[in-house]
Amino acid sequence: MCAAKQPPASLLDRIDSPDDLQYLNLNQLEDLAEELRQRIIGTVEKVGGHLAPSLGVVELTLALHYVFNTPQDKIVWDVGHQTYAHKLLTGRREGFDTLRQLGGLSGFPKRAESPYDAFDTGHSSTSISAALGLAVGERLKQGTGKVVAVIGDGSLTAGMAFEGLNQAGDLDEDLIVIFNDNGMSIAPNVGALSKFMSRALSGKAYQTFRKAMERRLKAMGSMGEELLDIARRSEESFKAFYTPGMLFEAFKFNYVGPIDGHNIERLIETLKNVQPLQGPQLVHVMTTKGRGYAPAEENPSHYHGVGAWAPRRDPKAPPPPQSYTEVFGQTMLELAQKRPEVMAITAAMPEGTGLTPFAEQFPERFVDVGIAEQHAVTFAAGLAVQGFRPVVAIYSTFMQRAFDQIVHDVCLTNLPVVLAMDRGGIVGEDGATHQGLLDLSFLRCVPNLSIMSPANENELRHMLLTALEHDGPVALRYPRGKGLGVPHDEPLHTLPWGKGELRREGKDVVLVGIGVGVEAASQAAEALAQEGIEAAVVNARFAKPLDAELICGLAQSCGRVITVEENEANGGFGSAVLELLAKQGIYGVKVKVVALADTFVEHGSQAQLRHLYKVDAEAVAQAARQLLD
Amino acid sequence: MCAAKQPPASLLDRIDSPDDLQYLNLNQLEDLAEELRQRIIGTVEKVGGHLAPSLGVVELTLALHYVFNTPQDKIVWDVGHQTYAHKLLTGRREGFDTLRQLGGLSGFPKRAESPYDAFDTGHSSTSISAALGLAVGERLKQGTGKVVAVIGDGSLTAGMAFEGLNQAGDLDEDLIVIFNDNGMSIAPNVGALSKFMSRALSGKAYQTFRKAMERRLKAMGSMGEELLDIARRSEESFKAFYTPGMLFEAFKFNYVGPIDGHNIERLIETLKNVQPLQGPQLVHVMTTKGRGYAPAEENPSHYHGVGAWAPRRDPKAPPPPQSYTEVFGQTMLELAQKRPEVMAITAAMPEGTGLTPFAEQFPERFVDVGIAEQHAVTFAAGLAVQGFRPVVAIYSTFMQRAFDQIVHDVCLTNLPVVLAMDRGGIVGEDGATHQGLLDLSFLRCVPNLSIMSPANENELRHMLLTALEHDGPVALRYPRGKGLGVPHDEPLHTLPWGKGELRREGKDVVLVGIGVGVEAASQAAEALAQEGIEAAVVNARFAKPLDAELICGLAQSCGRVITVEENEANGGFGSAVLELLAKQGIYGVKVKVVALADTFVEHGSQAQLRHLYKVDAEAVAQAARQLLD
Repeated sequence: MCAAKQPPASLLDRIDSPDDLQYLNLNQLEDLAEELRQRIIGTVEKVGGHLAPSLGVVELTLALHYVFNTPQDKIVWDVGHQTYAHKLLTGRREGFDTLRQLGGLSGFPKRAESPYDAFDTGHSSTSISAALGLAVGERLKQGTGKVVAVIGDGSLTAGMAFEGLNQAGDLDEDLIVIFNDNGMSIAPNVGALSKFMSRALSGKAYQTFRKAMERRLKAMGSMGEELLDIARRSEESFKAFYTPGMLFEAFKFNYVGPIDGHNIERLIETLKNVQPLQGPQLVHVMTTKGRGYAPAEENPSHYHGVGAWAPRRDPKAPPPPQSYTEVFGQTMLELAQKRPEVMAITAAMPEGTGLTPFAEQFPERFVDVGIAEQHAVTFAAGLAVQGFRPVVAIYSTFMQRAFDQIVHDVCLTNLPVVLAMDRGGIVGEDGATHQGLLDLSFLRCVPNLSIMSPANENELRHMLLTALEHDGPVALRYPRGKGLGVPHDEPLHTLPWGKGELRREGKDVVLVGIGVGVEAASQAAEALAQEGIEAAVVNARFAKPLDAELICGLAQSCGRVITVEENEANGGFGSAVLELLAKQGIYGVKVKVVALADTFVEHGSQAQLRHLYKVDAEAVAQAARQLLD
Repeated sequence: MCAAKQPPASLLDRIDSPDDLQYLNLNQLEDLAEELRQRIIGTVEKVGGHLAPSLGVVELTLALHYVFNTPQDKIVWDVGHQTYAHKLLTGRREGFDTLRQLGGLSGFPKRAESPYDAFDTGHSSTSISAALGLAVGERLKQGTGKVVAVIGDGSLTAGMAFEGLNQAGDLDEDLIVIFNDNGMSIAPNVGALSKFMSRALSGKAYQTFRKAMERRLKAMGSMGEELLDIARRSEESFKAFYTPGMLFEAFKFNYVGPIDGHNIERLIETLKNVQPLQGPQLVHVMTTKGRGYAPAEENPSHYHGVGAWAPRRDPKAPPPPQSYTEVFGQTMLELAQKRPEVMAITAAMPEGTGLTPFAEQFPERFVDVGIAEQHAVTFAAGLAVQGFRPVVAIYSTFMQRAFDQIVHDVCLTNLPVVLAMDRGGIVGEDGATHQGLLDLSFLRCVPNLSIMSPANENELRHMLLTALEHDGPVALRYPRGKGLGVPHDEPLHTLPWGKGELRREGKDVVLVGIGVGVEAASQAAEALAQEGIEAAVVNARFAKPLDAELICGLAQSCGRVITVEENEANGGFGSAVLELLAKQGIYGVKVKVVALADTFVEHGSQAQLRHLYKVDAEAVAQAARQLLD
């Protein structure tokens, strides 16, 4: 506790690095935890962010930095969305209100940002593998740094975490894995393992058995004692039977826990005990997601990642447009009502993908596989073989993890699986790890796969139907955020397969957009018209197959084409147009590709990033001017 | 046993479908197993193939088809390289000698080939996910077919198998998983789990404890009986403690086994017992890889997949060229001797990737992660952070599984990891699941990643050094099979970064090849020269960054370019050249792309497939003639 009577000086403001924690006593550490919470809530209110995960690990973060000698000791935060307290304690307090904003702090650990960020994370379940690499490297370098991975129970459902565990136990490396168990990941956890953990934790069967056994053995006197001794001496102790540790001990980890992840004293004591141990250690810590902020504790899924607290809306203002996510969810519901073969699959993102209404209305036809994108896609392939029409809704950036399954299990046999990829394109504040800027490229090379992207949220509806009607795999990619607010034209209808749409005529240059690129192209055409430049605008709709007739016809008649997309230029939509023209033997057309220029895209608002990385209407107009020059 | 004295009629020749097995008694089934073995060995001698895996499951295959009512019941074979007996029993006996040959039977299950092939496989660890999809579909359709997945212990090290297990137990679906445990996958198995299994199987600690306990409890009379009763009544039986079943029971599978996988009677009895059970079942079957063929039993790694038995070589003939794999392995050894920071990582393929000599000489700097490509790449990233230079050697087709890790864990932070991709391009007899035809496309879109491919095995040596000298991630792709037999120019030296090589001058057309495409281009140039066409030949070396100066210069001066690669045209090397020209504002060049035309490539010899799919010298020459027309 602070000694002064006047408004107490902030403890947090005295922490310039984790070294400063050593001067605090337990009470002060507890006060600091409270300050960290308030700072996190106050900042996320303003800038948005991953609130619940960060609130859950405040005490754990303090204890880790108190016990371990960072940055010589290395902490790898799985996913990394829980690192706000870590950032506040490691010299980034001053800039913390720039979190997730353009040029500001990243919402995730970044080696480029701080030496205390031992490994960059963002996607789930990489921490054990990365930490094992760090640990092996440390040993080979004859360094003395300890390596700690902090991984949540949700992340443990991904196969990659299992691969890491499996080898870490085998190599017998000095590695500490903190299993941050909050009983749920982003959505309530799925999987047999999760149920096993809960069973094991309560462990009634074992506890009952053990107590009865011990009581009776003790009552027997010396003979009983002898039996108890046999039990104790047995190579694996009773402890391993039917406790959460059993599983980790099968992987040759030494299991410690479970311990209360909000009790700093207990955490420090435990970590101090574990710190000098050799070989792989697993410390099981129980935490509450959203801890200390009642709305987030009650609804951690909702407060997993949040935007800035919106100012109260003028009740007379028109309602904001629906998001693509909402429209997707509604359309899935509408389609499922008419088509019993439609199924929905999500990988731990029922809310984020808009599928919660579907899950409620069609629980039998909805499957949340947990954080297990690989399994999601191949599981869907199995359903498709049985005649179902599975729609696998996974964010573009996470679909990267199922690439081999898309190729090998879906497309090779041309199975009618729909890959619904939300957050395609620039996603904004989540930054480089979460941008969906590769999908057009990594999917376009896969034979049998068709790829669509809607120009607005209404078109998304019809595209989803079109995808479901197609007898083969389809990837449907749509952006994060609000739609354009265009009206829905009822009822659902299929779009002509492989056909684009000429939206605007113009003789000087043809702007061919896909997805959000169509709106950028349209706005650019407006601007160019002011300058007397007549730009045609094409909504390509399909990245594959391309509308050869429309695109080649316009390209030949006009001679100038600009392609517009939110994807890497390498192998993307513009590249497809170039390939098409070459294949058709149409030479001499001047083509410019507006796309990401072979670069990762940092965090910031979508609008800022579109401008900065030159994929907005202004960039399109500028490209047109250059081409006409 | 056959009754007749004269040479016994073949039992196998009477089996037109699994239904015919019902007429055989146990002795006949055992004889049939022997016939199957002989047929498999005899065929593989002639055409090559996956010998050891198929020999290991002959009895299991017989028992499965005897007990289950295929194809209504569905068997999903993980990897699928063990399905030769399955093919022989399911109406494909006649064509079996066409195995793996152009137009003949695939070496893997294919739905297009037979209704008995329930799901196409080729890559490891997909079977549980696929089977779970089939099982859920079967239930929703109110079908009665059973679904069986057969998965080896090697495949269980991949995270995807874990994801499938984790959900299968959770959904409580009727699904039978046959765990085919041969104590090794392709290479001796790695991972804590594998060690746990062996420990658990011998289970000495548990057995000792249990026996001592029971003996003493029984000696105690009624009180001891009471205690034993408590133990038996405890919700989870003692059996689960420290047996292989423990782990699977944690996943809520009912565990049965282990049973002898070469005892047909026991297999049939067990499968008959398991067949009507509800919920997820795991049957643990112990088999010997290569069973019944002594050389394969002794050296299953070597006999995992083999070419046709080579005819004896004329001792006076010049030695055949080294394979790219051998040259890679030797160069790794050479580099490691000089550079202590070089490490080698394989995913269960030490022999296939040529790293066995490295592993023997530098065991500390060699890590086999098992079938765990995702972990391999992120583990390497951790090593790179510590200052090491890891080379991750994974076949091109399997690298697909680590795509997200390449993007997110290696390239996003620009870590100097070398991805050594053997079997890039057309691989031949293994067919569609194993072709390495996507890598240039799916990797080219990843920022920070450089991509190289050598024109011959000597260039591979220098490229490996060049990759290791580069301060960022590099993918190095080389083909399956023998090199061109070119001499090695000692010593190793770096190649100019991002620079190609003009191999031949010519004014009529520029042939720009990458990798094996360079040789095709060179041969085409020879042929064209006969016709009076002067073709320049460029060895691009780099798919990224491209040699803009060289390529653009020649393109502008000549006006006609043909790109040559063994990769899908969509987003591949030719696409990169088109992008380059557009980006540089070089319009009007006539470009033709020789590459795979958006199609999967079936099995056959490499030469046959190159011709059939039009990526050989003839196709290049033909493209040149068309362009000049």
